[in-house]
Amino acid sequence: MIQIKDVVDFFKSNNNYTILLHGSPDGDTIGSGYALCRALQAMGKNAEILCCDDIPKRYDYIKRGVNKQQFVPETVVSVDVADIKLIGALKSQYEGKIHFAIDHHPSNTHFADKLFLDGNASATCEIIYELILALGVEVDRDIANSLYTGIATDTGCFQFSNTTYRTHEIAAALMKTGIDAAEINRIMFDTKTRGRIDVERKVLDTIEFFFDNRCAIAVITKEMQVNASHDDLEGITALPRQIEGVRCGITLREKEENRYKISVRTHDPVDASEICARLGGGGHIRAAGCELCGPLHDVKEMLLNSVKLSLGD
Amino acid sequence: MIQIKDVVDFFKSNNNYTILLHGSPDGDTIGSGYALCRALQAMGKNAEILCCDDIPKRYDYIKRGVNKQQFVPETVVSVDVADIKLIGALKSQYEGKIHFAIDHHPSNTHFADKLFLDGNASATCEIIYELILALGVEVDRDIANSLYTGIATDTGCFQFSNTTYRTHEIAAALMKTGIDAAEINRIMFDTKTRGRIDVERKVLDTIEFFFDNRCAIAVITKEMQVNASHDDLEGITALPRQIEGVRCGITLREKEENRYKISVRTHDPVDASEICARLGGGGHIRAAGCELCGPLHDVKEMLLNSVKLSLGD
Repeated sequence: MIQIKDVVDFFKSNNNYTILLHGSPDGDTIGSGYALCRALQAMGKNAEILCCDDIPKRYDYIKRGVNKQQFVPETVVSVDVADIKLIGALKSQYEGKIHFAIDHHPSNTHFADKLFLDGNASATCEIIYELILALGVEVDRDIANSLYTGIATDTGCFQFSNTTYRTHEIAAALMKTGIDAAEINRIMFDTKTRGRIDVERKVLDTIEFFFDNRCAIAVITKEMQVNASHDDLEGITALPRQIEGVRCGITLREKEENRYKISVRTHDPVDASEICARLGGGGHIRAAGCELCGPLHDVKEMLLNSVKLSLGD
Repeated sequence: MIQIKDVVDFFKSNNNYTILLHGSPDGDTIGSGYALCRALQAMGKNAEILCCDDIPKRYDYIKRGVNKQQFVPETVVSVDVADIKLIGALKSQYEGKIHFAIDHHPSNTHFADKLFLDGNASATCEIIYELILALGVEVDRDIANSLYTGIATDTGCFQFSNTTYRTHEIAAALMKTGIDAAEINRIMFDTKTRGRIDVERKVLDTIEFFFDNRCAIAVITKEMQVNASHDDLEGITALPRQIEGVRCGITLREKEENRYKISVRTHDPVDASEICARLGGGGHIRAAGCELCGPLHDVKEMLLNSVKLSLGD
């Protein structure tokens, strides 16, 4: 079992680091990578960040914290990467060549020589915070900006159940450096893309209620998806269940004519996996899915029959 | 200047408390009132909560923490009440008879005999937390549920600029009692009323963009407001500014035929108060308002002329 002091020894005794992020990079992998990179540079080491995809523009304030250095890479680490597949196009170059992986996903596939994993951390940025303290590097405002971003985005701004008292303690320590957390939050949580607004508007128009308003069904047609990104559509599946009184929220996403990807989200005591299992799908008790083929009307009827059984009517 | 030890002396030396909340009670006044009531009861005092309006049902889990006691009220305190007007129908009975006010609004009008005010506290619940510690009462899970609710709701779940490192430190301490913060957050932030969903849907349909999408205007007609509460409409004014790229988001809320209440919300560097001042209104740099009369088309044109000047085109 690898301890934090082993990680400290590793980073102190090596040099010339390449830090790998996962593809479609989110706040946690970006924040972890840039905070670690800045800390290593502060220790007099060379370090660079690599990602198979571009870092979205809204994270520009994080990039300011690291210097571009010229060096021959020697040591490869990954942050917040649960599976080698997730480094995308960099896989062919780095598979079998990653010396250390730092991660918080219990599902990590142990693809690196060594793995430091803390499944109780809300974000990999929590682990990087402890590591930077242990390395004896000062957590300055640039590092704090990076780490706060990863923690805030992975916890939905301290809203989700992965948030612990330790998460809040670290947020307190990071805020003491004088970062503008409210501005980071504005960029991360208070900004919706035009694509998202457009889908949201159209999807809300489709919502129908059933079983005394305890079940809500929304439809995302192919046409609605034209200008929407993966991110835009991800959030939408949470919408129907958010409505007061709804215990079972369903989205039907049209993949092609007469073929629908179904997402079922429930509140206690309705079992989403049970609803989907009856239709050949599966998942968790609060979030499950399946695929159904047929005209929209028939697909809805199949779903409602299964929902009815799980509502116990 | 009143210190926390004066507040402690007051609560120790008096008995038989009536705790007043403000009308249209929110998480902070409710959380403050119930946490204080439970703490006083734990000290062997009698205490009760009074509010001119019903406590919304979603706060039921907070009410469980206090006992209904039979006693003759002697001592009157208010929590999170900035102005005597805000106790609504209770004003005639309690005006001039409030012994102590505990509040975090710098605008407090000093209506009580004594006022303990901390304008740096994100929520009155932060002050009540310090007070309960100073009173030597254990912060148990029921008290923590109440205080967490007030802090989370007044900070938008730690998102707004009133959140300080102290806010996070207190949240950490409250979570250590074992409260289910994620469930509180779900109730407070992940649930939308049917009324809100309905208005949102209709309002999104009205959004128009101007000046290279830097200005977005939404209209809330009288018809859209029929099934919406004050709360539902409050949140809507934030919508246009949330759209990516929008620096100036405007909502026009129809009060009666040809009369509109205008809310202007901006991002740096656009000055909302300047835009509204030209039209006879006022406010702050990021949030301002005015009232305009005339047919919708003319009202929009007046607004756009003022927005154009402030965008510097």
